Amino acid sequence: MSKILIQNCAIVPMTGETDFIPIGEVAIEGEQILSVGMPGVVPPGWQPDRVIEGRGTVVMPGLINCHTHAAMTLLRSYADDLPLMEWLNTKIWPLEAKLTGEDVYWGTKLAILEMIKGGTTTFADMYFFMDQVAEAVAETGIRASLSRGMVGNGDNAQVALVESRDLYHRWHGAAGGRVNVWLGPHAPFTCPPDYLREVMRLAADLGTGMHIHVAETRDEYVQIQEAYGKSPVKHLEDVGLFDYPVLAAHCVHVDSEDISILKAHNVGVAHNPESNMKLASGIAPVPEMLKAGIPVALGTDGASSNNNLDMIQEMRSAALLHKVATGDPMVIPSHQALQMATIHGAKALGLEGQVGMLATGYKADLIMIDLERPHLYPRYNLTANLVYSAYAADVRTVIINGEIVMDDRRVLTMDEEEVLRQTERVVGRLVSNG
Amino acid sequence: MSKILIQNCAIVPMTGETDFIPIGEVAIEGEQILSVGMPGVVPPGWQPDRVIEGRGTVVMPGLINCHTHAAMTLLRSYADDLPLMEWLNTKIWPLEAKLTGEDVYWGTKLAILEMIKGGTTTFADMYFFMDQVAEAVAETGIRASLSRGMVGNGDNAQVALVESRDLYHRWHGAAGGRVNVWLGPHAPFTCPPDYLREVMRLAADLGTGMHIHVAETRDEYVQIQEAYGKSPVKHLEDVGLFDYPVLAAHCVHVDSEDISILKAHNVGVAHNPESNMKLASGIAPVPEMLKAGIPVALGTDGASSNNNLDMIQEMRSAALLHKVATGDPMVIPSHQALQMATIHGAKALGLEGQVGMLATGYKADLIMIDLERPHLYPRYNLTANLVYSAYAADVRTVIINGEIVMDDRRVLTMDEEEVLRQTERVVGRLVSNG
Repeated sequence: MSKILIQNCAIVPMTGETDFIPIGEVAIEGEQILSVGMPGVVPPGWQPDRVIEGRGTVVMPGLINCHTHAAMTLLRSYADDLPLMEWLNTKIWPLEAKLTGEDVYWGTKLAILEMIKGGTTTFADMYFFMDQVAEAVAETGIRASLSRGMVGNGDNAQVALVESRDLYHRWHGAAGGRVNVWLGPHAPFTCPPDYLREVMRLAADLGTGMHIHVAETRDEYVQIQEAYGKSPVKHLEDVGLFDYPVLAAHCVHVDSEDISILKAHNVGVAHNPESNMKLASGIAPVPEMLKAGIPVALGTDGASSNNNLDMIQEMRSAALLHKVATGDPMVIPSHQALQMATIHGAKALGLEGQVGMLATGYKADLIMIDLERPHLYPRYNLTANLVYSAYAADVRTVIINGEIVMDDRRVLTMDEEEVLRQTERVVGRLVSNG
Repeated sequence: MSKILIQNCAIVPMTGETDFIPIGEVAIEGEQILSVGMPGVVPPGWQPDRVIEGRGTVVMPGLINCHTHAAMTLLRSYADDLPLMEWLNTKIWPLEAKLTGEDVYWGTKLAILEMIKGGTTTFADMYFFMDQVAEAVAETGIRASLSRGMVGNGDNAQVALVESRDLYHRWHGAAGGRVNVWLGPHAPFTCPPDYLREVMRLAADLGTGMHIHVAETRDEYVQIQEAYGKSPVKHLEDVGLFDYPVLAAHCVHVDSEDISILKAHNVGVAHNPESNMKLASGIAPVPEMLKAGIPVALGTDGASSNNNLDMIQEMRSAALLHKVATGDPMVIPSHQALQMATIHGAKALGLEGQVGMLATGYKADLIMIDLERPHLYPRYNLTANLVYSAYAADVRTVIINGEIVMDDRRVLTMDEEEVLRQTERVVGRLVSNG
């Protein structure tokens, strides 16, 4: 069981509103955090195997990307600046139809490489060929909540249910507990009520939750209104979906009644500000959702609508977007943006008490950010610097489940060069007639 | 006269809508670009002193930050998430009142260090102690348009006029032509018409332009409406300001008539999306201004309202913000965002034909961006990758006026460590009673 001590670092443990340790230490034993605090917090006599010098860095919980389609890195910059339906119909879906399981494996590795380099330690994925995604997660040391996307009005509606069940049995709790499997009913407009009820029965059977797109676009809102005479959120409540653990991605087109419903059922929301901006989907009423007490987490969405998987940028964009959208420069202050990217993410994924915070007994998922950068001087307010000024490239070291997966910006669990070359190879085939 | 050849690089010269050279070379002789193009474009027999290998990089014009207050790096993270007037009255202005010329020198060096590391080769600054700013510019190798901020309704209105004239005579055209001096009447609400007329006379006398904040906030708009019965833009037109070269920062609260005025007078606009978002100032009608043919450039504003000086982020934020604000995912496509940060900046600063483009006879202000990064794979579309996916830290090499100022991320014109230590020293005094 490895023992790591990080010393002389600043610490933002995310255990409270204003907590901040200017110089402290973090002790890790096995998969867990043993202690966090001022120098001397480590139990007397405890001897680390490795000491990491943390001077000039801040240690904080790893970032949690609550909504992505990791392998869509393979489609990054393939189609931009287009209307949504044209983008999907003429570009994204035709290329996705060509993807093989091996492609998804390499696209996911590329995504994980980028996410680790940007300080993400957990991600929630919804895609297909999820066995290959799980393999990539297992190999690379990251933590993930995986959902096989299920489209109820398509040809493989029943196959998706079977595959989801199999995925759960093969992978839930695997890789030292780093892999969780949830179900992935795509969205209310692609999953009719009867199909959602099948998914819910499976969720009940397995004892797991569901990750679903909800009210992402105005078109979806109108479509559900026309079909059921109510909002997507109200519709899902009436179907009974929210009686199970649910991670609802987007929630752009929601009103105050919808917000009450989400809160009443303890639904986690994954806000994707940059994807919503880039696709012009709209601006989710995030300050109202936060005020209602909903754990609004953050996601990057896929790299084809962002176009990166940078959670620091996502925090920043969330904080900036809602200030200008509400006309109130006080909404989503920096500490709240950090909460969205950490403890809210943990809550939304059912991982509360395990990750998203630095405290004794939590999983050792944490990142060290290098503060010795011109853009992080001066340091009146560390949380403001982290949210408004920092870059993904400032992340120096990443520890997940007690394992060092990135050390001084070198990812130890992958051959970076190989991932880039395999991506080139896969993309070469995709854009040819293959 | 130094001769530099960059070879085997991709090139985005910004000479047209779709121009892109997959593998080419750029030759630099002295301060200027000698040739740009496919391999073999260099004149026969021309021998470089230094060859820079460009494989895996893209070369493009340096980014132009058209509105900042560089030394406000000293106030980065000092006050965030506050209402504008409370932010200014209780935080920013009291701290600014303590600044000395030496403080401004170090704050500007910190800003320039950050800007160079993020690929900015020219910036437009409005602040005070501008001699010290000019010294920092001269020493560090960057190009700048400097304006002493002039507040017409304050105690030093006349002093500011004298200082601006002196600054012009001492610095305009200095440092190998890298320093330009413009006048800096602060804003219509702080500069009454009579004072603006004095500034205009001085501009005419010196033959230079003016950098001014215009219609940044709703409050300013209302104040000017109440005082003069017209919009800030119409007011400035009637005062005659736009009969001179003008760089108008912000232009958030402008209507279609204002846009016609700005276009008719060839006014350059510096759009600052992140500052406008963070301070909740509003969303400028940038797509309409661009459609009208106004050279809308980009600026970061000061680091205390952003909180960094990252022009790649600013391009990205501009492209994303206006998509969601208009509901149209096609506005500000990636190539247009690049134009805003390059050739529009050159136009707005009166530097058209000199910088903002890679072409024979232009000043050699260019940057090399490392493409061998996970977040820049695959490469279907290089301009999309640059705008939507790239980071400041991907900038590898920066050349300004033919001089290499950053080589493989090492800034050659400054002692980075010294700048950080001096910043700490200055800030230590500012927050004490000193």
